[in-house]
Amino acid sequence: MKKKYLAISGGVGGAKLVLGFSKILDPTQLTVVGNTADDFEHLGLHISPDLDTLMYTLANRNNRKQGWGLAGESWNFMKALNSLGGETWFQLGDRDMATHVIRTRLLSEGRSLTEVTRYLCRKMGVQHSIIPMTDNTVATLVDTVGGEQLSFQQYFVRERCRPIVSGFQFQGIEHAQTSAPFQQILKDPSLVVIVICPSNPYISIDPVLSLPGIRTIFQSTSVPIVAVTPIVRNQAIKGPTAKMLKELGMSVSATTVARHYQDFLDGFILDTQDKNLVEEIETLGMAVTITNTIMKTLADRIRLANKTLDFADQLLENSR
Amino acid sequence: MKKKYLAISGGVGGAKLVLGFSKILDPTQLTVVGNTADDFEHLGLHISPDLDTLMYTLANRNNRKQGWGLAGESWNFMKALNSLGGETWFQLGDRDMATHVIRTRLLSEGRSLTEVTRYLCRKMGVQHSIIPMTDNTVATLVDTVGGEQLSFQQYFVRERCRPIVSGFQFQGIEHAQTSAPFQQILKDPSLVVIVICPSNPYISIDPVLSLPGIRTIFQSTSVPIVAVTPIVRNQAIKGPTAKMLKELGMSVSATTVARHYQDFLDGFILDTQDKNLVEEIETLGMAVTITNTIMKTLADRIRLANKTLDFADQLLENSR
Repeated sequence: MKKKYLAISGGVGGAKLVLGFSKILDPTQLTVVGNTADDFEHLGLHISPDLDTLMYTLANRNNRKQGWGLAGESWNFMKALNSLGGETWFQLGDRDMATHVIRTRLLSEGRSLTEVTRYLCRKMGVQHSIIPMTDNTVATLVDTVGGEQLSFQQYFVRERCRPIVSGFQFQGIEHAQTSAPFQQILKDPSLVVIVICPSNPYISIDPVLSLPGIRTIFQSTSVPIVAVTPIVRNQAIKGPTAKMLKELGMSVSATTVARHYQDFLDGFILDTQDKNLVEEIETLGMAVTITNTIMKTLADRIRLANKTLDFADQLLENSR
Repeated sequence: MKKKYLAISGGVGGAKLVLGFSKILDPTQLTVVGNTADDFEHLGLHISPDLDTLMYTLANRNNRKQGWGLAGESWNFMKALNSLGGETWFQLGDRDMATHVIRTRLLSEGRSLTEVTRYLCRKMGVQHSIIPMTDNTVATLVDTVGGEQLSFQQYFVRERCRPIVSGFQFQGIEHAQTSAPFQQILKDPSLVVIVICPSNPYISIDPVLSLPGIRTIFQSTSVPIVAVTPIVRNQAIKGPTAKMLKELGMSVSATTVARHYQDFLDGFILDTQDKNLVEEIETLGMAVTITNTIMKTLADRIRLANKTLDFADQLLENSR
């Protein structure tokens, strides 16, 4: 029986590592659970930013320079929308629009987000399983110091993370059901590791962990759970993680991330530049390994993916 | 008090004459009522082909070669939609999409099609009033000889008018209310002519005439009603009119069109090439004038518009 691997991921940062996994694991072996709490309805369209980033990345169609959307994209819809006075704070490329139009249409016909994502992946030639954490609607709300509550995309895109954050709410999470294939893989006896990708712990990973039952399953499972740090030398590799940590009164350090997952994490992959933190993190009750976690090239992604799986193997053997 | 003018129009053919009117009439003088029975919902978007053709034409943004859509359009959305297995029989350009997305969004917020059309026209710099015949949903259904009933766009675009037509239904027409500005202009004492543009009588003009009360108003109004022939020498200038006439068992002749409007028409503008039909049409109880009705250049459009207004003036004077 082939070993199976589960990766929990947000958008860009996580997708890099997921791409690495996809190059070394068979499509039947890898399941990627994407955060859907960033999903939102915009211009009448259902947009799933993290699922799209994962899909476009595995399809080798992602815009690497931009960090989101499709490569070689054109923006004529957006320009026309602007001239007609439409909302343009969230950029939708001409080709990207097709994804959202089809997703919205299939959802309105009663298909689940799991089914729609599977359909889109198949059409884009993505063979590995990308699945939404839930088929229900969950929406990240950002509490800000001024007292204003913003929807995630308003905060993240429209306000470019400028407001000072005081906390997050995942609206709808208490009634959200873990998607069927996510439930399935968690029960699969072939599952040998759960990887928490180097994504933002608060906005990308916490929604998944907040699904009813998931944190308890993670705490009790015998499958090793390994996280790859999204923080290197007091800086986030990508996005607003460092700014958020500061605003939430935490130190911008890989240790903060490890502590965030302390109740269920078996292993933590720390960047070489942070080797001084090894003992501190081991004190939290988890194994630590160090490696270069900055993924610039495809080779970096594959190397880190291999390293992650080796580390998980080792943890599994030690536990036997 | 300035004289006011009402034009009833379908898409391409009618829009040519409407453009002519717009060049010689003040924005406050001209009201264009567009057919909306071709409107349909596609990919979750509300599409109003005739209103868009009128709007794009008056904005000088229409694609003249293609006959529909915007000039200088790109098709990346459509290509992506095709690669994702979406429906591509109805072509939607990248820029054109913005019109449909905004229309759909505003309608879903409870704005009327009249308001949405006014908004879009303003944003496109169209100063003359383009108004939908109704804010309610009316849908042309095409009865075919095989017994199959097709939606208009399925017949017109997807099947390219290939099926043999046996009749038309305007679904929802019995409960459709004439749009407020259409009602208003009909009651306006400054109205001096109603022009039936050279559009298809069955699919573009009949929906307007079938709105509850309209035909009765047209029959009883003292305002002259003038039609410009869409048929020249047994051929339609544009579109499937000739084919339809044949299939419906009528002769493909300007006379057929004049007879179709016989109960309310005061004047008929016949093409010079059809001057042999003058007497035949006069027998139907209407005045006839002949001129070149084929509009190739902007000058042709303006000349025919002027000719139409002169003819109407003459009819008005004769009636006094």
